[in-house]
Amino acid sequence: MSTNPPPSIGVILCSSRQPRVCPQVTAFVTSTIESSASSPPSTLHLIDLAAWNLPLFNEPGIPSQIKDPSDYTHEHTRAWSVEVQKYSAFIFVTPQYNWGYPAVLKNAIDYLYIEWHGKPAMVVSYGGHGGTKAAEQLKQVLQGVRMKVAETMPALEFGGRENLGRATRGEELQVGTWDGRKGEVVKAYEELMALVV
Amino acid sequence: MSTNPPPSIGVILCSSRQPRVCPQVTAFVTSTIESSASSPPSTLHLIDLAAWNLPLFNEPGIPSQIKDPSDYTHEHTRAWSVEVQKYSAFIFVTPQYNWGYPAVLKNAIDYLYIEWHGKPAMVVSYGGHGGTKAAEQLKQVLQGVRMKVAETMPALEFGGRENLGRATRGEELQVGTWDGRKGEVVKAYEELMALVV
Repeated sequence: MSTNPPPSIGVILCSSRQPRVCPQVTAFVTSTIESSASSPPSTLHLIDLAAWNLPLFNEPGIPSQIKDPSDYTHEHTRAWSVEVQKYSAFIFVTPQYNWGYPAVLKNAIDYLYIEWHGKPAMVVSYGGHGGTKAAEQLKQVLQGVRMKVAETMPALEFGGRENLGRATRGEELQVGTWDGRKGEVVKAYEELMALVV
Repeated sequence: MSTNPPPSIGVILCSSRQPRVCPQVTAFVTSTIESSASSPPSTLHLIDLAAWNLPLFNEPGIPSQIKDPSDYTHEHTRAWSVEVQKYSAFIFVTPQYNWGYPAVLKNAIDYLYIEWHGKPAMVVSYGGHGGTKAAEQLKQVLQGVRMKVAETMPALEFGGRENLGRATRGEELQVGTWDGRKGEVVKAYEELMALVV
């Protein structure tokens, strides 16, 4: 009798600004998932778009028309394709900029297509007001590449001027800022895992 | 007795893919405006984001908190700020990628804030189905930087497999593809000009 290994989930840090608060938000999300007894098992792997540092989209072809990743022209596209192929599902941790998603995130999505197609996604946004507008726009884009998006999308506010200032400067937020939001993160994660076939 | 000079409008080519169809779409829009007797006078200036080739956002500060463009850290940001300051209003000619706007466009918007603030904008989208989803997302972002967006947003379809293939390859579209859409472009432009104070 054998059991399947737990699914491998890519957790995408969707900000590249320096300083930035994205790694803190991501740490809250992953530790909440890993410490919750009710979360289904999985392994979480960080994918930092700042470290990937992809150039602005420069493939000559239309990604949705490319069925074989060896057809990509650029080495950076093939490497990004291999990375995204590794995971069964994704958690996007994204800031909101001007009521939309960051360019660095849209760029990373638009490079590929079949690598995303059909996979489950969970969206966590953050911002002064939680970033719900960016989350809704991102949900539409993920549906555009035919991902299955978990219904619950935690939107994490900084909550007050002090934390907003710290976030702007990329400093540590006040301890326990999102303690009350853990249940929502776990709920979104359980929805995500239910979508993994 | 003096008259004001006609307002100067920036027409932004929002695609950087090579090959691309954006210059053709833009030429249709500008020639339609310039040849319409009912259009209020203005001067149209092309701004090609592919030529600008801005790196992915790398300013340390939050643009909405910067009140003096000399506070930008990078020379490319200061140059882009000077360019956007030149114009009274903007026409965005944008493709739709995966049900959203292109990264190169969001990147160019997010670099600045006060340079956009309060100015009128007109959106023209294009794509296999016209790109209405990208136009709606872009409208929200432009409202996020507090621009005044013209209500009419022409969404130009390629209309058929032959044209879609040509568009993919960046070739000339069939003659007269959007002849029936000129009235809509002129209407959007008139709305834009009504918003210029």
